[in-house]
Amino acid sequence: MLELISEHMCFGGSQRVYRHDSAATGLPMRFSVYLPPQAGGERLRVLFYLAGLTCTEETFMIKAGAQRFAAQEGLILVAPDTSPRGAGVPGETDSWDFGVGAGFYVDATEEPWSRNYRMYSYLLELRELVLDEFMGDALRCGIFGHSMGGHGALVMALRNQDLFKSVSAFAPIAAPSSSPWGEKAFTGYLGADREAWRAYDATELMLLMKTPFPGGILIDQGLHDKFLAEQLNPGAFEAACRQAGQPLELNYHPGYDHGYYFISTCIEHHIRFHGRQLG
Amino acid sequence: MLELISEHMCFGGSQRVYRHDSAATGLPMRFSVYLPPQAGGERLRVLFYLAGLTCTEETFMIKAGAQRFAAQEGLILVAPDTSPRGAGVPGETDSWDFGVGAGFYVDATEEPWSRNYRMYSYLLELRELVLDEFMGDALRCGIFGHSMGGHGALVMALRNQDLFKSVSAFAPIAAPSSSPWGEKAFTGYLGADREAWRAYDATELMLLMKTPFPGGILIDQGLHDKFLAEQLNPGAFEAACRQAGQPLELNYHPGYDHGYYFISTCIEHHIRFHGRQLG
Repeated sequence: MLELISEHMCFGGSQRVYRHDSAATGLPMRFSVYLPPQAGGERLRVLFYLAGLTCTEETFMIKAGAQRFAAQEGLILVAPDTSPRGAGVPGETDSWDFGVGAGFYVDATEEPWSRNYRMYSYLLELRELVLDEFMGDALRCGIFGHSMGGHGALVMALRNQDLFKSVSAFAPIAAPSSSPWGEKAFTGYLGADREAWRAYDATELMLLMKTPFPGGILIDQGLHDKFLAEQLNPGAFEAACRQAGQPLELNYHPGYDHGYYFISTCIEHHIRFHGRQLG
Repeated sequence: MLELISEHMCFGGSQRVYRHDSAATGLPMRFSVYLPPQAGGERLRVLFYLAGLTCTEETFMIKAGAQRFAAQEGLILVAPDTSPRGAGVPGETDSWDFGVGAGFYVDATEEPWSRNYRMYSYLLELRELVLDEFMGDALRCGIFGHSMGGHGALVMALRNQDLFKSVSAFAPIAAPSSSPWGEKAFTGYLGADREAWRAYDATELMLLMKTPFPGGILIDQGLHDKFLAEQLNPGAFEAACRQAGQPLELNYHPGYDHGYYFISTCIEHHIRFHGRQLG
């Protein structure tokens, strides 16, 4: 059951926020969806966007300027929230980089997070929901994201190549097991055993990949991004892609930082990329 | 003295927020400026944007997607705040449509507002500052705005045709003297004598205009805008334009509401309009 929270016309399509009860997280969840003007006819390609730390389901839709190009391409855009909200886990709002707003798109296995902080399963649930409710094309789904969400998008696509046929990222946490953000989150959600982290580390997953994404993977990264050296490490992912034979377009942009002014500058390139990949 | 608060690269240019001490308001004021990639050479055209109720100097820059087109056109964008902040007038934060965030771009004459709530003079001060600091072209400035800011833009341009050579608006409060928002604000800032309101009412000013804007005035208005009937009244302004011989492009958009998803849909048309008008 979807509850419509808001609806605004935008570039001839419809920008909406919904709330629904999630089986995966056991809580009400919000997501936003942009239905392009082409919606209502044939099944459309669907592009999922995963946001970064502290963001909500609305951040991308408000700040990135993606609807202009989704309308041109006839793509459905979907953006989930970045964590469960209202789980009531003690301390879940104490940090901006762990707990609320920082689900890291993993299924927590550690108490007390394991009951609700199950964003990996939630994304799979949301994909099914969106395909059913909005006539999405199950064979033509892509995924992208920013920072923590870039990590989430890479992991989700690498583990589910049958479900996501195209993947890109803005400034992803590309090797979270060796990033302070990733270490904090994975320790909290998955425990101290680093073996369990590998299933959520894009660089590790790339080394195990059997079949490359034939159209390549796209990453844009600002060189004035203050998190680049310590947290993001796209070089490690690039090396893994080379080793695995995965084509990668990794663009470094002098002067650009980690925020949505950077994303808005690169958004057309990403939407066109997914449009092409999804055919 | 300008104090740089933030700076982000965006579409090859620079998105900044500054704080400065204003003579007009007697308080520190913030504004945002987008300098396109062309900045630093010849003097550039400048386009001022006035935001609506409750907004700040950042709202437009974050939500409208204007930088993409300002970069293409080589236009400087400037967005002031919507009121003084920190005046300490009793009750100034009690209403969302009067006081803080709701300066209405007038010079208040009523106590206790008249000391600081002088946004009309502030805009003239800001125009001079921007021309000096960022190599703006004094002969090629335009102005536009949304809702309360659409009112402000129309009034500013109609009263200063030598200073602003192009004007457009999204869903402006086009006849504020007969709008509940306008009546509340004008009563509070200007007093009960409606004669004093005429200098800040675009429809009244249009009836007195000597020389039309030769390239016309552009207004976009959503038909699903819940404020259209009671607050905005573009029809009154349209009638005044007809009477004054002022060319007007007034576009009604079925399905669109009062928010920034509407503005983002129409922003390219407005930036191109000003680009052409300013030559």
